[in-house]
Amino acid sequence: MHDVANPNHVEAHFQSSELVRDVVIGMADGLTVPFALAAGLSGAVGSSHIVVLAGLAEIAAGSIAMGLGGYMAARGDVEHYVSEREREEREIIERTQDEEEEIYEIFEEYGVTRPESEPVLSALKRNPTAWVDFMMRFELGLEKPASYRARQSAAVIAFSYIAGGFIPLLPYMLLDQAHAALRASVIITLIALFIFGAIKGRLTGGGAWKSAIQTVCIGGLAAGAAYTLARLLSAHPDF
Amino acid sequence: MHDVANPNHVEAHFQSSELVRDVVIGMADGLTVPFALAAGLSGAVGSSHIVVLAGLAEIAAGSIAMGLGGYMAARGDVEHYVSEREREEREIIERTQDEEEEIYEIFEEYGVTRPESEPVLSALKRNPTAWVDFMMRFELGLEKPASYRARQSAAVIAFSYIAGGFIPLLPYMLLDQAHAALRASVIITLIALFIFGAIKGRLTGGGAWKSAIQTVCIGGLAAGAAYTLARLLSAHPDF
Repeated sequence: MHDVANPNHVEAHFQSSELVRDVVIGMADGLTVPFALAAGLSGAVGSSHIVVLAGLAEIAAGSIAMGLGGYMAARGDVEHYVSEREREEREIIERTQDEEEEIYEIFEEYGVTRPESEPVLSALKRNPTAWVDFMMRFELGLEKPASYRARQSAAVIAFSYIAGGFIPLLPYMLLDQAHAALRASVIITLIALFIFGAIKGRLTGGGAWKSAIQTVCIGGLAAGAAYTLARLLSAHPDF
Repeated sequence: MHDVANPNHVEAHFQSSELVRDVVIGMADGLTVPFALAAGLSGAVGSSHIVVLAGLAEIAAGSIAMGLGGYMAARGDVEHYVSEREREEREIIERTQDEEEEIYEIFEEYGVTRPESEPVLSALKRNPTAWVDFMMRFELGLEKPASYRARQSAAVIAFSYIAGGFIPLLPYMLLDQAHAALRASVIITLIALFIFGAIKGRLTGGGAWKSAIQTVCIGGLAAGAAYTLARLLSAHPDF
């Protein structure tokens, strides 16, 4: 149902899609990179010990790097919004005519003539704050980011990364022989990638099957490349 | 200079910021995660050999996972745009009055009264394609993604990851002793993170110094956590 009476429906849509995006960012990499790294190392070392060590170090590094990276990106969005807003505030005072012209041009793109958009311009000029709001969204396409976004984004990305990363490592924790653990890791991780891809596809509207297959392919390719590289390197006499 | 005469200036701004964002996404993780992983492993193993092996496997896995992840995200943006657009196209025919009401509501948020926005609505109704374009941007806040974005995004992220990842690994490739290599790796990577952060800050307008210090802190924290974890684990008798 498209609910016209609810003014929050667009905003709610944006927020939930940002949360889903953060889970997807964290879990996609968390499932894939530790999986691929562990597979790669199994191609070169015999014992699971070093694979688990490297895997856990990778999860610690990856979750912190991605979580803090997400925090900085969200903070950057806020700062970008604030600095662009200050520029617009200056411009509607210092370059009023240019800004009026920009409004006409925005509407002309949609086939609205100058006399037709003139009343909107007059209304905006009555209220400078609304005028700046209008320019932010309609000229620059910028939404005001929520203030709690940065911390939420960091936490969601980091925990999703950790949750994803433990799945491929579990077999190496339970089995001493890296090669035997690899087989179990491949099976459970491909299943996890498939389920994750299907849920992601359903939530983001991209189709469950298609997304599941794509996600399995990315994980498989990354792990295959890491495995091949590690095997080639460890077989090389100079290495 | 704010160039009013150039209708592409907003679009150019969007495109270059997307390119910068992709380089930042790839290089931030490429510099940080292999660095942290290598530091973590140096805390547990004596020879550089296994550190280089794990590092290269991580770079292969990370660049593919992040590159393909970026590709899928960009493809997802296109599909999301197309499906939302089809919905809007249906709605302006099937629920014309609701959609008209939404336009009034969009303008009312900016203090524009119904009589003032009425001429714009009439103009949009003359041209259904423009009306859908207008709703996409002004109701949903969606830009039409460029068709080449997905491939470009994948390539830029992957190459940035690889370029970033080789910097911390270089000392381990040149020095046999992992502990000696770690010291060199820490120094050159922190310098690289500082330079990268400063350039990023300048390009994205967040301030060169602040961004440089933040970037160094993220890399340092991730590497410190991975190092501590690997040391603790390798000192544990049951492990």
